[in-house]
Amino acid sequence: MKNSKRKSDCPINFGLELFGDRWTFLIVRDLMFKGKHYFGEFVNSEEKIATNLLSDRLSMLESENMIFRSKDKNHKQKIIYKLTKKGIDLMPVLIEIIMWSALYDEKSAVDMNFVKMVNEDKEGLIKELTAHLISS
Amino acid sequence: MKNSKRKSDCPINFGLELFGDRWTFLIVRDLMFKGKHYFGEFVNSEEKIATNLLSDRLSMLESENMIFRSKDKNHKQKIIYKLTKKGIDLMPVLIEIIMWSALYDEKSAVDMNFVKMVNEDKEGLIKELTAHLISS
Repeated sequence: MKNSKRKSDCPINFGLELFGDRWTFLIVRDLMFKGKHYFGEFVNSEEKIATNLLSDRLSMLESENMIFRSKDKNHKQKIIYKLTKKGIDLMPVLIEIIMWSALYDEKSAVDMNFVKMVNEDKEGLIKELTAHLISS
Repeated sequence: MKNSKRKSDCPINFGLELFGDRWTFLIVRDLMFKGKHYFGEFVNSEEKIATNLLSDRLSMLESENMIFRSKDKNHKQKIIYKLTKKGIDLMPVLIEIIMWSALYDEKSAVDMNFVKMVNEDKEGLIKELTAHLISS
C-alpha cells in the first residue's frame, strides 16, 4: 500500500488496506497460531491458497514490515518466514475473530480450551503467545 | 456463504469467509461507528464504494443475518439498514483494528480520545456502544 493511494485516513480503512484480504489474514494465522514458517506449509493449508496469490501476499506483508524472511539455519537453501512485532500485534484482531466465530458458527473447529483461556485472561494469553513468537 | 462451500472449519476462516473483504468491513464500520443507515450514506463514504459492490455486500450481510433492513418510519419510501446483534458483536474485531492502526499508522485519523477510552475500559466501552446500537 502506498500512502498516496490511500482511500481515507480512517484507522479501520488503514488496517483493511494492509490486511483486509482473507488470504493475507490466513497467512498471518498460519504464522501466528499454526507454527508454519515455509512457503510449502502455507500452500498446504486447508484453504488451498494458489501459489501466485501466496507469493503476492508474502511480498506485500514483507514490504509492509509485517513479516520478514531469512535463510533457515538448518536448511540453508530454504527461506523461513516469521512475523515481525507489527505482525504479531495483529493477534488481538485474530483472537476477536476466533471469539466471534465461536459464538456464531455451530460447526466451528474452534478449540474450546482456547476460548476458555481467552475468557479467563485475554491479556495474559496475548502476552504469553507474543513472547513465544518473539523468542522463537 | 453456503456451509457446503466452506474451505475449512477454522474459526478464523469462518469469520473471513463472512466479512473478510474490506468493503464488507467498511459497511459494518459505517453502521457501527458513523451512524450511517442509508444506501446513499454508504455510497458517500470517503472510500467510494461502487454501487454494485455495495448492493452485493448489503445482500450478503442481510442473508447472513448481520444486518436487517426495514422501512424508515419517517420516510416510508426509504430503506433503513441496521446491524443485528450478530453484526454488533463484531465490535471487538473493529476496535482491535483501530488500536493496531493507531499504533502503526503515523497518518492515522484515529480519534485519540477513543483510543484512551479503549485503553481505560474496553469492556465498558463495548457494552455502552452495544446498548446504544441495540436501542437506536
